[in-house]
Amino acid sequence: MISAVVMTEPDAPLELQTFDRPDLEPGAVLLKTLGSEVCGTDAHLWKGQLAGVPYPIIPGHVSVGQIAALGPVHPTTGVVRDVSGAPLQVGQVVTFLDVYGTCGRCWYCTVGHATTRCPERKVYGVTLSARDGLLGGWSEYIHLKPGVHVIPLPAELDWRAFLAGGCGMPTALHAVTLGEVAFGDTVVVQGAGPVGLCAAVLAQLRGAGQVIVVGGPEIRLAAATRFGADAVIDIGSTTQDERLAAIRAATGGRGADVTIEATGVPAAVPEGMRLTRDAGRYVVVGQYTDAGNAMFNPHLDLNQKHLDIRGCWGSDVGHVYRSVQVMARYGRQFPWTDLITRQYALDEAQTALEDVAAQRVVKALIVP
Amino acid sequence: MISAVVMTEPDAPLELQTFDRPDLEPGAVLLKTLGSEVCGTDAHLWKGQLAGVPYPIIPGHVSVGQIAALGPVHPTTGVVRDVSGAPLQVGQVVTFLDVYGTCGRCWYCTVGHATTRCPERKVYGVTLSARDGLLGGWSEYIHLKPGVHVIPLPAELDWRAFLAGGCGMPTALHAVTLGEVAFGDTVVVQGAGPVGLCAAVLAQLRGAGQVIVVGGPEIRLAAATRFGADAVIDIGSTTQDERLAAIRAATGGRGADVTIEATGVPAAVPEGMRLTRDAGRYVVVGQYTDAGNAMFNPHLDLNQKHLDIRGCWGSDVGHVYRSVQVMARYGRQFPWTDLITRQYALDEAQTALEDVAAQRVVKALIVP
Amino acid sequence: MISAVVMTEPDAPLELQTFDRPDLEPGAVLLKTLGSEVCGTDAHLWKGQLAGVPYPIIPGHVSVGQIAALGPVHPTTGVVRDVSGAPLQVGQVVTFLDVYGTCGRCWYCTVGHATTRCPERKVYGVTLSARDGLLGGWSEYIHLKPGVHVIPLPAELDWRAFLAGGCGMPTALHAVTLGEVAFGDTVVVQGAGPVGLCAAVLAQLRGAGQVIVVGGPEIRLAAATRFGADAVIDIGSTTQDERLAAIRAATGGRGADVTIEATGVPAAVPEGMRLTRDAGRYVVVGQYTDAGNAMFNPHLDLNQKHLDIRGCWGSDVGHVYRSVQVMARYGRQFPWTDLITRQYALDEAQTALEDVAAQRVVKALIVP
Amino acid sequence: MISAVVMTEPDAPLELQTFDRPDLEPGAVLLKTLGSEVCGTDAHLWKGQLAGVPYPIIPGHVSVGQIAALGPVHPTTGVVRDVSGAPLQVGQVVTFLDVYGTCGRCWYCTVGHATTRCPERKVYGVTLSARDGLLGGWSEYIHLKPGVHVIPLPAELDWRAFLAGGCGMPTALHAVTLGEVAFGDTVVVQGAGPVGLCAAVLAQLRGAGQVIVVGGPEIRLAAATRFGADAVIDIGSTTQDERLAAIRAATGGRGADVTIEATGVPAAVPEGMRLTRDAGRYVVVGQYTDAGNAMFNPHLDLNQKHLDIRGCWGSDVGHVYRSVQVMARYGRQFPWTDLITRQYALDEAQTALEDVAAQRVVKALIVP
Repeated sequence: MISAVVMTEPDAPLELQTFDRPDLEPGAVLLKTLGSEVCGTDAHLWKGQLAGVPYPIIPGHVSVGQIAALGPVHPTTGVVRDVSGAPLQVGQVVTFLDVYGTCGRCWYCTVGHATTRCPERKVYGVTLSARDGLLGGWSEYIHLKPGVHVIPLPAELDWRAFLAGGCGMPTALHAVTLGEVAFGDTVVVQGAGPVGLCAAVLAQLRGAGQVIVVGGPEIRLAAATRFGADAVIDIGSTTQDERLAAIRAATGGRGADVTIEATGVPAAVPEGMRLTRDAGRYVVVGQYTDAGNAMFNPHLDLNQKHLDIRGCWGSDVGHVYRSVQVMARYGRQFPWTDLITRQYALDEAQTALEDVAAQRVVKALIVP
Repeated sequence: MISAVVMTEPDAPLELQTFDRPDLEPGAVLLKTLGSEVCGTDAHLWKGQLAGVPYPIIPGHVSVGQIAALGPVHPTTGVVRDVSGAPLQVGQVVTFLDVYGTCGRCWYCTVGHATTRCPERKVYGVTLSARDGLLGGWSEYIHLKPGVHVIPLPAELDWRAFLAGGCGMPTALHAVTLGEVAFGDTVVVQGAGPVGLCAAVLAQLRGAGQVIVVGGPEIRLAAATRFGADAVIDIGSTTQDERLAAIRAATGGRGADVTIEATGVPAAVPEGMRLTRDAGRYVVVGQYTDAGNAMFNPHLDLNQKHLDIRGCWGSDVGHVYRSVQVMARYGRQFPWTDLITRQYALDEAQTALEDVAAQRVVKALIVP
Repeated sequence: MISAVVMTEPDAPLELQTFDRPDLEPGAVLLKTLGSEVCGTDAHLWKGQLAGVPYPIIPGHVSVGQIAALGPVHPTTGVVRDVSGAPLQVGQVVTFLDVYGTCGRCWYCTVGHATTRCPERKVYGVTLSARDGLLGGWSEYIHLKPGVHVIPLPAELDWRAFLAGGCGMPTALHAVTLGEVAFGDTVVVQGAGPVGLCAAVLAQLRGAGQVIVVGGPEIRLAAATRFGADAVIDIGSTTQDERLAAIRAATGGRGADVTIEATGVPAAVPEGMRLTRDAGRYVVVGQYTDAGNAMFNPHLDLNQKHLDIRGCWGSDVGHVYRSVQVMARYGRQFPWTDLITRQYALDEAQTALEDVAAQRVVKALIVP
Repeated sequence: MISAVVMTEPDAPLELQTFDRPDLEPGAVLLKTLGSEVCGTDAHLWKGQLAGVPYPIIPGHVSVGQIAALGPVHPTTGVVRDVSGAPLQVGQVVTFLDVYGTCGRCWYCTVGHATTRCPERKVYGVTLSARDGLLGGWSEYIHLKPGVHVIPLPAELDWRAFLAGGCGMPTALHAVTLGEVAFGDTVVVQGAGPVGLCAAVLAQLRGAGQVIVVGGPEIRLAAATRFGADAVIDIGSTTQDERLAAIRAATGGRGADVTIEATGVPAAVPEGMRLTRDAGRYVVVGQYTDAGNAMFNPHLDLNQKHLDIRGCWGSDVGHVYRSVQVMARYGRQFPWTDLITRQYALDEAQTALEDVAAQRVVKALIVP
């Protein structure tokens, strides 16, 4: 029997339930879970802030495991291969794209080239139900359905290091890529959670001239500094005007070349427009749930500023694949595992969730 | 003595004043005005809605004239040349970039490559004072200071045709370029004034699959249809929900691939975000003055939509040069002069201004 | 019994063979062929100039048909839908992307976002064997395997008009898109075959300031002129130096802003580099087979020119979908069917092939 | 009297000559030289391999100096300001863009947005004559004419460190920017001279997954490794096939995502096309002089590969400004001064030139 954490409905206590070992379809993979992250989305799920979630679910979208078993060879697609085309082997340590079922046939997949808007898209640990099996990471085993994109971790990338980035890393990688950071740019990051911290690191790996993190609380700002931020601004002890003045002072009066929003707070968005220089780029990635409206001035904040604003939704295979390569390559420079505040066993998942919701930790892992 | 229309201060009647023929500096050009446009900006100037205007001014930023005289040869830059490098000749029919004085040395000019944000930038007819001479187009002559960028009109482009586009054409050309219209895209244009109409035409010259103009009043929507819009939606007789439903119905439920805002109304901006499909592009070019705030939902309207929003400010030499080429090439297809509702003499400038402010005309010309 | 043209091996006469009506798998579609094009690739296939062709094949990659039958509902993907998500209906007139089997799982599909380089990719009429069924368009019926991307033709787009563009249209659409034509640009097209002619049209639908076609023979240059080219240069009666001088003369001495190569002749490539202005863009789309080497000067032709050169391979769903939209929208302006020189019955396919190989026709259709 | 090194004509011994202290025009600056680099271009100049050089010249294009004097305030442009708009002060340590005289009026400056192709463009130490004054860096003083773009060095960037990059840094920054390196990409650099080494560093500051340098001799490959290259391939001891095999082996058989050519050898260009993966990007920056032709296969090397090739010519203010910011920010990670093999006095310039031409040094400085 396999134990897994189940979120039965919003606001209810998590339960530890047992499941049968699944039969593997041709092309499927069974992972023995090494670890799975706890992310802000899990707190949103628990509070019922996301639409279309098929409770009960097994939370945990970004996970690492060891291949325990491979399904039969698939009649048309053959043996299961990783993203680079190499056949998978039992015993390999791998991660996988939590997004499953992107159809490849709809308008968004084929004409729009915007696969994160495919209506068939499901997410492990978020929009796949525990009634359909081990489709989340807070579990002893994870069932990768045929077609899930599998990415082996290179030998030099410890699985804990990869999970220290968690889903924040591909999310930030997508956002920073959209930000088109040029060499020497000043990058302001709004928010010091996992996405914000990863964005602050990745901005340095785009050759930013300075990286300034605006956020809190103290434990997260300290992490930002440890990971190379040139300056941090505590959102708890400053006004919006003070923050604007500070960013202007650091940029010859102009404002940030690129700003990355990773807060989830609607009011951060008009503030971010103002923190960004004329003709700069502003990427909004943190508004993952509907937390209300915001007010802005289209003339001053957008049109006259000649500002570029880019909403950023979801990740694709490339973002995760590239995150793995980057984390493996720059681990000497950035000690990823320092981001992990604490590991939790399956039966401590409730505590993990509450610690994350209260921002008492930087990154929490579930380790079955 | 040279007659010119002077706007002495906001809300005061326009005056016809006389000026001496200017002495030309080395590198300067004197134009005998053939015509100058009246644009929405002139109405804003008259109402005092722009900051930093050095009244008294001679209005008229986009103009066409015949070269009446050339200043002495400049000691370092030599004879005056057009943008393509050909020496200018007395008698040539030319237009010029109204933007003057972009410095070429500041951060925005050199590092930011965003010359429309250069702080030294002045605009003929807007931010140059009548105290400094014939620096606006509603005048018998225009004094082009050394360094003004001059663009001859090709033989096949009548000067009235060029002014029928007026400053709306390079503005729209900038906006449509930023919109990155792909072949077959649905383009929605918000606003049916000169910028909006030009955008509707230029969208067809990017191979749009359909072009829908949302605006009014009837005279302008009729022009949109005559210039090839596939559909028009009258803003006066529809609700926001009806407009959204109409655009969705025309796009398989998705929304516009590209939306161009050219209204000046703050509430149009959140509406435009919603009219645009997920992962689409939204260009905001019409918020030229501060007309107040707007409310939007950062999660629904921006982040989850994976929306790109691009503020668009000002024009550069390239936009005007390209407008000239496009209008010359596609005049058989688009009868530009049909956009001109009426021509006004210098002493009718007050009427012209009022007709434009009241949207009684599509395009008005001052013809000295 | 179903008749189809079979190319049994290179250089052998085409044969008319009969096939059984296929059993349709879940998700498959049977098309009654309305027409299929004959393109230069078919001549290459016949001469054995493409590698990896599984002779015998039924030629004909871009085709239009009427849906004769739909396979059973697929257990996971449900009813067959078009690219926009609408369920297909028997009797509809549709085209389809000839590319079949792009895997969606390999590195090029998922990380590289370069699906035209997917190693699993097969092409109807080119790399699918007649041994496996009705997988080419020169046939009374075409068997669309599950997953083939189907695009209905709008009512205003006659099927003959669509085939007049044929595979040249999406190919040219891909190339012209890569060329990033700006408003008013001078576009030079090398080659006056179907790809070149379509590129010349599409350049106008990007707002090019002038379009110059360099090619031959006379019948094709006449078509270029009829379809709006501002000038044509006959490759048969000019030297390379003369052509360079002519393009320079038409562009103020600079050269083309964008050049599109669609010739298949290696020597055209260094010539195209020289026809393009400094800092211009050069798209090479016509070198579809290995016709030998070319010599160029890396300093003069590339580095000092600050030239962008873009190889362009294959089409994806978006290119065909967008071609359909553009051809439907701009049919009044461009009388597509004028490109068709002659229609051939199935038993005239050999003549059609020879006419195309000899460039005696602009566009040839097979109409069963 | 001021001493300066003069290259009187190609192949002649350098001379030490004396000059009068220049009178400064309004807007001019006199720099007391701290140091100036010796670069491969100086060897080309000495061998007479560049066209249009107005011998005699004072070599030295990238230099650092201390402001010794400022000219009178300019009547129209006012006090001399740095690129960020701050007034310059006597005593400041600054560098400057060696490109001088870009006109801001021609087609390339205004429409083409390709200022490195402006025909008015001159370069300190290369295309400005010693007859016109102290217009090169191998001199005790340098005369910055009005309009030269001046960039102060931040306190944390030692002037020797900046010169260790020399003109290789902005050149490589331009090339790597054009390469559009994505996170995790494999970047191959052809050439291990200053441009190649800087490109190898900058690729890491774009988050490359691995950086492989192909070049020689040993002293330079050792520098590449010290500056973080993941692998080096010695061009002296390998065949083209072996190099291709090595790159393929390091990239899952695909080839480099981005290749940067910095060799000056024509044959490197077709090799670089082959080292790059399908749909990858290849930037050619090293073909600074005409060293002959190269042969390639347009079908295999370009069209079917769907390859992007980008010629890269010259630097603008932004490239130098950004180089300064990057070198200041990442000096702890990359010990720039280690790139300097030796400093030479003015009267040792001949030796310096010969050492550079023979590739006996990585970077040589002239220190008056």
